[in-house]
Amino acid sequence: MDVGELITIDWGTTNRRIFAFDSAGKTSLRQADALGVTAVAAGGFQAIIDDLRAVHGDRLFLLAGMIGSNRGWVEAPYIPCPLSLDDLVSRLEWVEPGRTAIVPGACITDGARVDVMRGEEVQLLGAAAAGLVPADVGLCHPGTHAKWAELKDGALVNFRTVMTGELFALLRAHSLLAAQMKGDAVDGPAFREGVARGFDDRALTADLFGTRARILLGRLEPDDAASYVSGLLIGADIAIGVDMVPPGTIALIGDLRLTALYAAALKVVGRETLEVDGETAFLAGIKAIAEKLA
Amino acid sequence: MDVGELITIDWGTTNRRIFAFDSAGKTSLRQADALGVTAVAAGGFQAIIDDLRAVHGDRLFLLAGMIGSNRGWVEAPYIPCPLSLDDLVSRLEWVEPGRTAIVPGACITDGARVDVMRGEEVQLLGAAAAGLVPADVGLCHPGTHAKWAELKDGALVNFRTVMTGELFALLRAHSLLAAQMKGDAVDGPAFREGVARGFDDRALTADLFGTRARILLGRLEPDDAASYVSGLLIGADIAIGVDMVPPGTIALIGDLRLTALYAAALKVVGRETLEVDGETAFLAGIKAIAEKLA
Repeated sequence: MDVGELITIDWGTTNRRIFAFDSAGKTSLRQADALGVTAVAAGGFQAIIDDLRAVHGDRLFLLAGMIGSNRGWVEAPYIPCPLSLDDLVSRLEWVEPGRTAIVPGACITDGARVDVMRGEEVQLLGAAAAGLVPADVGLCHPGTHAKWAELKDGALVNFRTVMTGELFALLRAHSLLAAQMKGDAVDGPAFREGVARGFDDRALTADLFGTRARILLGRLEPDDAASYVSGLLIGADIAIGVDMVPPGTIALIGDLRLTALYAAALKVVGRETLEVDGETAFLAGIKAIAEKLA
Repeated sequence: MDVGELITIDWGTTNRRIFAFDSAGKTSLRQADALGVTAVAAGGFQAIIDDLRAVHGDRLFLLAGMIGSNRGWVEAPYIPCPLSLDDLVSRLEWVEPGRTAIVPGACITDGARVDVMRGEEVQLLGAAAAGLVPADVGLCHPGTHAKWAELKDGALVNFRTVMTGELFALLRAHSLLAAQMKGDAVDGPAFREGVARGFDDRALTADLFGTRARILLGRLEPDDAASYVSGLLIGADIAIGVDMVPPGTIALIGDLRLTALYAAALKVVGRETLEVDGETAFLAGIKAIAEKLA
C-alpha cells in the first residue's frame, strides 16, 4: 500500500513516537511524547486511535513495541527465530481488521537460553530491507535492554538481550555509587579503561565495587565515575555480544548518542562498526511492511 | 587486657551492635539498633560514647566498621595486605588515647586491581585466631558487599569484594523484575538452576534479562523469580571467588541465613564449606585484639 495512507506509532513502555507520511513517502507528522503504554488506562487505547483518525483521516495504523505486550493493548505473539519481514506481515495482530494492526515480537526458545524482543525487530529487519546494513550482519541495538542480533539473508536468526542501560540507571539512581555517578557517561580515558576491564575480566559485580575502591584509594576521579561504570557495563555487554555475532563490521542501530558510545567501546576491542539512526531504521521497517501489505 | 574492661561496637552504615563482657569473658550486654553511622549527626559520636560510659563505667571502647570510614567519626587507615591481628593492634586509630580506638580497615593496592574492606577484617582474623577456621583457608563473607579472602598463617593475604547483595536489593526494589521478585530467595530448584547458569555463563547482565524472558515464555514461575535471580547473582559471585581462593573447604562467615545460601550454591559447583556465625567471629576478633593490648 501507499505509505501516505498509513500512520505508525512506535509505542514503548514510557514514550511513544507517532509518524504520518505524505503521498511521496516523506514524513508529514512526527510527534514524540510521554504517553507510553503504562500511562494509558486499561481500555483507553481505542479512544486514542479514534482521536488520531478524527484528526488525520481514516488511515491504516501500524503499531509496534510494548503496545503488543501483556502491559499493552492486545497481546501480539512472540514469533520464534528465524524471522523475516514476511513473517512479521503474516503474523500481524489485527486489532481492527484491515484498519489497526500490532507488529508481533520475536523470541528464542530452543536450547537452554530463551529471550524476547519487542519493537527492535522492526528496526533491525527494516535496516536490512532498506540496504542501511548488509543482509548478513551482526547487529547491536544499545539501550535499556541492549539487543545483539544476527541477520542472515535479511532475516533475524538469533539475538540476545543484555540489561545494560537499566543497570546503569539503577546504579546511578540508587546504589552506593550514586553520589559519584552524577555526570553523563562520555567517551574518554575513564570510559575506555572501564570497557577494557569489563570486557576482559568477566567479573562485573566485583569490578562495580572496584569503582568505589578506586575512588577511595585515589585511582579514579569521582567526576569520572559515571563514565567508568558505563565502560564496565558496556565492556561486559560487548563481551557477551561479540561472542554471538559473525566476524566483520558490527552494525549499531539506535539512539545515535548511544551508538557512538558503543562504537567507541567496540573500537577498544578492535571491532569495526557502522551506525544507523534507530528512527530511520524504524520508518524503513514500517514502510517495508506497508509495501508487503499492498 | 581483661575483656571485662571492654565495650565494643560493630558500627556499620545503617546498623550497630554494642557488646559488653563480664569478667569471665561472657557477653553481658548485646544491643542491636538502627543507629548506624549515617544516622549520627556530624560531631555526635563523642556524646554517644560518653553516654555509654555514664551507664557502663569508664571502659575501653573498641569500635569497628564504617565508624572508621570517611562517613564515620574519625577516618582509620586502610592497611595493605598482608595483614595480621598484630597489624590491626599496632595501627589502631586512637580517638581518645588509651580509652577509645577504631580498628583500621584493609586494602589491596598492588597490581591492576584495588579493593577495600572495613569491618569484616575483625571477623576473618578473629575466626582464625579463635580456631573457628584453619589458619590457611579460603573464606567468603556474604552480604551487601560479599568479601572473598585468603588467610595464610592466620593473616589476610588477599581479598576481593563482589557487589552481590546490593545488586539483589536494587533489582528487587527498582528493576523491571521487581514486580516478580516479591518473596525471599530460598534454596531450591530455581535457586540452584540460577547458580549453575550464573557460575557457568559469565554473562550476568544477559542472564538477568533472561529471567524476564523465562517468565514470559512460561519457563519460570513468577514466584520463583527472587530465588532464581539470587542464584544468578550468587553463581556469578562464587565464580569470581573460587578463582582466587585455595583448593579445599571454603569457610563461610557471616549471617547464618546467608552462609546457608552460599553453602547451597557452593555445593552445586562441588565445593565443601564450613559455616561460622559472623557475630561469634567478630567477638573472637575483638577479644584477640584486647588480649594483645594487655
